[in-house]
Amino acid sequence: MCKATGLFISLEGVDGVGKSTQAERLRDYLRSLGLDVVLTREPGGTELGTVVRGVLLHGVHRDDGSAAPDISARAEALLYAADRAQHVAQVIRPVLRAGGVVICDRYIDSSLAYQAGGRELTSDDILRLSQWATDGLWPRRTYLLDMDYQASSRRLTGEADRLESAGAAFFERTRQAFLDLARQDSHRIKVVDASASIDEVWAGIKRDVDVLLHERGMAGSEGDAR
Amino acid sequence: MCKATGLFISLEGVDGVGKSTQAERLRDYLRSLGLDVVLTREPGGTELGTVVRGVLLHGVHRDDGSAAPDISARAEALLYAADRAQHVAQVIRPVLRAGGVVICDRYIDSSLAYQAGGRELTSDDILRLSQWATDGLWPRRTYLLDMDYQASSRRLTGEADRLESAGAAFFERTRQAFLDLARQDSHRIKVVDASASIDEVWAGIKRDVDVLLHERGMAGSEGDAR
Repeated sequence: MCKATGLFISLEGVDGVGKSTQAERLRDYLRSLGLDVVLTREPGGTELGTVVRGVLLHGVHRDDGSAAPDISARAEALLYAADRAQHVAQVIRPVLRAGGVVICDRYIDSSLAYQAGGRELTSDDILRLSQWATDGLWPRRTYLLDMDYQASSRRLTGEADRLESAGAAFFERTRQAFLDLARQDSHRIKVVDASASIDEVWAGIKRDVDVLLHERGMAGSEGDAR
Repeated sequence: MCKATGLFISLEGVDGVGKSTQAERLRDYLRSLGLDVVLTREPGGTELGTVVRGVLLHGVHRDDGSAAPDISARAEALLYAADRAQHVAQVIRPVLRAGGVVICDRYIDSSLAYQAGGRELTSDDILRLSQWATDGLWPRRTYLLDMDYQASSRRLTGEADRLESAGAAFFERTRQAFLDLARQDSHRIKVVDASASIDEVWAGIKRDVDVLLHERGMAGSEGDAR
């Protein structure tokens, strides 16, 4: 395992809480400070991830148009882990080694919340898989964007995919799984109230990330840290 | 983990030793005894496996025609494990539960020989992944078709794929890894000299499988067991 010298940040939360918007704000802000920043996501941050994402969200395409059987819980967990292993090897570690910043839209916590919290596998199963897939690489900071189902439903637009159509009970169970993770690892995971306005949510993230940058000697100027 | 009541047989060995030919003979023979038989293979025994096999053998297709980065060793191992998890859940366990016979062209031993013996990961890594993926399902019998590189080269036809083009050193290293596995688990794995004629190789497999069928009360007639 190589030592990562850059800064690794992940954004987590149930679909529809505004992760992508905040990730882009964060990327633009860090770039404005002159930092090398890569914004990426799971699943789908590599070519392999794109294939995996397609399989997981839409199933396997059959030439005759018939429905393929469901993907088993273990196969699904292993596909997510394969995506993560490739993502870490191909994208995340090279950027960190070069001293850059990686912002990742979903990482290990999503697997723990969705697969362990929402499906039939245990947290230990998923944690061991992810630890192995990443060779033990965790983010320095994780922002958990949190809101309740009603607020999220209002925010969501576009077509529902497999995860999004699973409904309110699944949303709340997954949300609670995320909040449990934040309680267990409060040093790494900061819970952000995502039901506030975009500007307010961003202000909270910016305050925290400025402190992180300062600690690491990566701050562009002291003025930006307030 | 559910109890499997059928008979699970795998065929193993380096590419070009005649596994497919013997698997088909075995399938046809067992069917002639009136047994329900499914012949399947890894990777590729399910729709998901076909996708995984394509990625592993030919890489990920990019729309602009450029080469995608290599798949990392951990990602590769996890993809094989995902294929296996799905294969066990969708194909192998249902047949065994119904009392049928599954013949599998490559299974866990191939992962151990190719990924642990031939690449950078440890046997323990691969074994733990496969154990988890299959929920602990092992074949009752494994036939290891063994021959040296020269004999195999003469037998091989058609285009070389990624594994096949890796050359003699890789072949011999993988072959030795298979033979080591057979020494460690001689109760399950029977080594078959695959440099003999197809009929002679088949005669050796048939003798052993007849004993297995007899033990399990699946034999068609006593006469077939000699």
